[in-house]
Amino acid sequence: MSKPIVGILMGSDSDLPVIKKAADIFKEFNVPYEIKVLSAHRTPDETIKYTEEAKDRGIEILIAGAGGAAHLPGVIAAKTTLPVIGIPMPSKFMDGLDSLLSIVQMPKGIPVATVGVGIAENAALLAIRILALKYEEYQRKLEDFIEKQRQKVLNIKIEE
Amino acid sequence: MSKPIVGILMGSDSDLPVIKKAADIFKEFNVPYEIKVLSAHRTPDETIKYTEEAKDRGIEILIAGAGGAAHLPGVIAAKTTLPVIGIPMPSKFMDGLDSLLSIVQMPKGIPVATVGVGIAENAALLAIRILALKYEEYQRKLEDFIEKQRQKVLNIKIEE
Amino acid sequence: MSKPIVGILMGSDSDLPVIKKAADIFKEFNVPYEIKVLSAHRTPDETIKYTEEAKDRGIEILIAGAGGAAHLPGVIAAKTTLPVIGIPMPSKFMDGLDSLLSIVQMPKGIPVATVGVGIAENAALLAIRILALKYEEYQRKLEDFIEKQRQKVLNIKIEE
Amino acid sequence: MSKPIVGILMGSDSDLPVIKKAADIFKEFNVPYEIKVLSAHRTPDETIKYTEEAKDRGIEILIAGAGGAAHLPGVIAAKTTLPVIGIPMPSKFMDGLDSLLSIVQMPKGIPVATVGVGIAENAALLAIRILALKYEEYQRKLEDFIEKQRQKVLNIKIEE
Amino acid sequence: MSKPIVGILMGSDSDLPVIKKAADIFKEFNVPYEIKVLSAHRTPDETIKYTEEAKDRGIEILIAGAGGAAHLPGVIAAKTTLPVIGIPMPSKFMDGLDSLLSIVQMPKGIPVATVGVGIAENAALLAIRILALKYEEYQRKLEDFIEKQRQKVLNIKIEE
Amino acid sequence: MSKPIVGILMGSDSDLPVIKKAADIFKEFNVPYEIKVLSAHRTPDETIKYTEEAKDRGIEILIAGAGGAAHLPGVIAAKTTLPVIGIPMPSKFMDGLDSLLSIVQMPKGIPVATVGVGIAENAALLAIRILALKYEEYQRKLEDFIEKQRQKVLNIKIEE
Amino acid sequence: MSKPIVGILMGSDSDLPVIKKAADIFKEFNVPYEIKVLSAHRTPDETIKYTEEAKDRGIEILIAGAGGAAHLPGVIAAKTTLPVIGIPMPSKFMDGLDSLLSIVQMPKGIPVATVGVGIAENAALLAIRILALKYEEYQRKLEDFIEKQRQKVLNIKIEE
Amino acid sequence: MSKPIVGILMGSDSDLPVIKKAADIFKEFNVPYEIKVLSAHRTPDETIKYTEEAKDRGIEILIAGAGGAAHLPGVIAAKTTLPVIGIPMPSKFMDGLDSLLSIVQMPKGIPVATVGVGIAENAALLAIRILALKYEEYQRKLEDFIEKQRQKVLNIKIEE
Repeated sequence: MSKPIVGILMGSDSDLPVIKKAADIFKEFNVPYEIKVLSAHRTPDETIKYTEEAKDRGIEILIAGAGGAAHLPGVIAAKTTLPVIGIPMPSKFMDGLDSLLSIVQMPKGIPVATVGVGIAENAALLAIRILALKYEEYQRKLEDFIEKQRQKVLNIKIEE
Repeated sequence: MSKPIVGILMGSDSDLPVIKKAADIFKEFNVPYEIKVLSAHRTPDETIKYTEEAKDRGIEILIAGAGGAAHLPGVIAAKTTLPVIGIPMPSKFMDGLDSLLSIVQMPKGIPVATVGVGIAENAALLAIRILALKYEEYQRKLEDFIEKQRQKVLNIKIEE
Repeated sequence: MSKPIVGILMGSDSDLPVIKKAADIFKEFNVPYEIKVLSAHRTPDETIKYTEEAKDRGIEILIAGAGGAAHLPGVIAAKTTLPVIGIPMPSKFMDGLDSLLSIVQMPKGIPVATVGVGIAENAALLAIRILALKYEEYQRKLEDFIEKQRQKVLNIKIEE
Repeated sequence: MSKPIVGILMGSDSDLPVIKKAADIFKEFNVPYEIKVLSAHRTPDETIKYTEEAKDRGIEILIAGAGGAAHLPGVIAAKTTLPVIGIPMPSKFMDGLDSLLSIVQMPKGIPVATVGVGIAENAALLAIRILALKYEEYQRKLEDFIEKQRQKVLNIKIEE
Repeated sequence: MSKPIVGILMGSDSDLPVIKKAADIFKEFNVPYEIKVLSAHRTPDETIKYTEEAKDRGIEILIAGAGGAAHLPGVIAAKTTLPVIGIPMPSKFMDGLDSLLSIVQMPKGIPVATVGVGIAENAALLAIRILALKYEEYQRKLEDFIEKQRQKVLNIKIEE
Repeated sequence: MSKPIVGILMGSDSDLPVIKKAADIFKEFNVPYEIKVLSAHRTPDETIKYTEEAKDRGIEILIAGAGGAAHLPGVIAAKTTLPVIGIPMPSKFMDGLDSLLSIVQMPKGIPVATVGVGIAENAALLAIRILALKYEEYQRKLEDFIEKQRQKVLNIKIEE
Repeated sequence: MSKPIVGILMGSDSDLPVIKKAADIFKEFNVPYEIKVLSAHRTPDETIKYTEEAKDRGIEILIAGAGGAAHLPGVIAAKTTLPVIGIPMPSKFMDGLDSLLSIVQMPKGIPVATVGVGIAENAALLAIRILALKYEEYQRKLEDFIEKQRQKVLNIKIEE
Repeated sequence: MSKPIVGILMGSDSDLPVIKKAADIFKEFNVPYEIKVLSAHRTPDETIKYTEEAKDRGIEILIAGAGGAAHLPGVIAAKTTLPVIGIPMPSKFMDGLDSLLSIVQMPKGIPVATVGVGIAENAALLAIRILALKYEEYQRKLEDFIEKQRQKVLNIKIEE
């Protein structure tokens, strides 16, 4: 895999089953990415260091999954000018309402692009829509992907 | 103003006071944009037509504000491969919980980058972070903006 | 089965177990219906085409089940003058609060008749109450159905 | 006004400002209607009597607005085979979440067609979509109405 | 068992496992009671008839369990001057938030004494506190019950 | 006024405007009552002393209004065998959702009869329904009250 | 174990699995503690007696876990000047929203330090941060703990 | 004022009216404190620097008020071993539900002592209960404060 252009962060490896769904999309689209376990609360220094260096290392988009008082996306958004995408994890409390609000309700000045609770695929697809503005190859793949999912719906046969 | 690269949609002109906050950011950053009133429910054909033509017209990012059963961002995201940013309007019901969930909880396959309820500034700033990946000028302006808002916080004098 | 007068749409075949409860009611009442898998997000063009042609094909009522950012009922209600009934699917997030609000909170101008979360039977029974205004046979069957469910309650024997 | 075919019920005259929005739509469409103040809790017998007689008096659709523990739509739906449309009133508690859930979450067997909190216009427009299945005149007026609201959106001029 | 002084209603026998917890308390206190399956929606006439006759049959308190758009307690409270106690059933939607709000948020004029979601024991104990105002025997049993539950807490041994 | 048989407690005199609505009902029904300002948190000893002595002083029913982490009704219910009625105050947080849940969700063993948020009239009317089991005079007054509120609804004239 | 300086209360032994997570932290830090089962509702006198005597017995911090209408932390906070930490239990209703609001929304004057729903570890760690202000040994252990949890995150290896 | 032992942080001076209520308590108790405007998002470096130096500067307790995606308390708790108290600000969205959940739902390992939404007085009183473990003078003042607020309740005269 070539040098990653997307960095995916998660605060704990218990988030991996959700995060993997984003990684699978990136593999399907041949987008080089890296996954790091970094916690806003348990490894704040390393998280900040990673974020500060990301752009110079060639990262163009950061994705962060977090649950509960989900600070990771906002904390990194405060330390970079790259677009940051937040994935609210389906926590044990009200199916992730805490995660969702902790990520989406950012104060003006520091945006986090939030996707649906647990829908890591959409974090990846949003990243690819962004990358496609710059890299023509992803544009074509996006169109194929959309056509493929259209066909998939149209081919469903219902047997009552 | 040169040819717009960002298209901002809203379903009703009652959303304008919120949407203007995004427009003001774009003006501050010299990002060419356009605002259209188009409703997913009352002008579905024009909404789809606008979305289908947006990319060829040079639009790179679409922003849509909507309230209540807020379908506009999702409806346009289904008709383009451009990144779509959704702004949940602060509706009369639970301060926009309906708008937020109707926008953020998109099914996998069609992402909408959601910002906080009523925080249109962040929709614009997110768009600019995305544009900055491609256009160097916005990168420098973003850094200035962040420095300026940092100074603003540091200069606050509290008088008890 | 004769030409369908009710069209039931769902965005994904994972909704079938819920949707089947509506279909079973229609079978019991001998109401000709059809089920289509069409997604507001993954097959927007086909969804619109189906909706535009529905009335001319003899469809009198449209029913749509959707979950999460549940746009399907609202999207089709914007493209027809037929009555549209929405069934909020019990999603993974807060048991379908997102589905409910995304369907019921339609802006003025475009109504969607919403039933309880996951209660597809009532979508069918509401359709039949509407059809009974025009087709006498359903009126008699409705009265029988109500009497039967009354008897069912009255015949319950509790054994402590 | 000729013999009413729609009966609108509300539990208290404090609901009138909301209910009037439905009445205004009916006037615009020339649909004969009547408004009654009848409470599921304070005048249960009169409410039931009205409901039992409605159909024989020529009523084809019942609309009920109610707030809080909003029982009126469900109570009348249990005593008629006519379609019943419920309007959740914007109560003082969580902007009408109580009204919404008390109306929409009907058990299987007795449907209530629920519209958005306080959106009485849509109750009327839903009723008209239903009536238009039977009465051709409403069909044409509906199309005009939809075209008019489309034009209204398209004619908005934004002055920044 | 002597003539019942408490009538317990439920809309469906699926509520029995919860309702039985109230019945068990009544058995423990030797309070004569009866259980009826009566639905506000599926057997409205029988429900009203039962309620109208309850007082003359010697019933002093009515208890009703209901879920979802839980109208049963309010419907009977409108047809009697006896105290009515409502038990919100733990429904499939938000663990019974719909049941709770549909029961507790009664308009002024018609009170329903609401207990916690699914806590049928407390409906029975509340009834017994009420009966104890009039019947001395329940007073002594209540004191014993409270002392017993106090002892039960004090006798817990924790083994870590 | 003769010796009070109902004791109304509130934690702060800011609750008086709500509590007065219960007092007004008691005046209308000639039920002797007393109002005390006692806080579960700021005057715990006096609250407990009042509760322990209430029954011997002739109090038959206790009513407590409380907001936020509304402990007062539950705290007194733990120290008496009298029926305790709780009134959730409309707090600043989610219109009293905190007050409602803190009062209604009592654990099994200690019931609190909860009425709607801010609906103090119903606390009084519930108390009177209970007293009417024992005191014939309140029974007749209750029937008059119900008839009067019925007439009031029936006499409403709607002028569109 | 030496004389306890932390007292942990819970209303029922069903809370033990959660409470044990706090106890395990105290063991790891060698903080002497005691666990008592005491209920605000079922053993109010013993709860108050324990709280009144706690300080003289050498207790410096009180921790209370409670669910539903969770009064225990507030009730003891009203009877001591020691810091009181509340742990909202994950109840059956909305995953503990009732517990959380009943504990955190204390009126001004009587604070309860609230931690996340079911996160008993943090109640213990908060207590230790407080104790570390006074007892140097806990300070060093805290730093070790934080370093250890940092290392644990850094050592995670992700295998896709 | 002598060297501060409590540091109060807020992300914006719009929070000052709430934060002042904590400051007023500290003045009343003669607790030396300082207030800083520091934002987790707009001045992340200064926030971290302040937090890292706080302990060596003599600060013993940190208090942070924040609203929306309220990260400030959690971010500083990750960078200190001092006790951190979080005050959820009453935001525009659901009266601060977002602020509350973003602060209280911290993952295990990093505790934040959360008080009620907007109840800054309790943050100060909690800090003083903690300080009183170490500084005898605050203990006596706390007892006076509690007695004074008790007298205040007892002296309320209700005039109906």
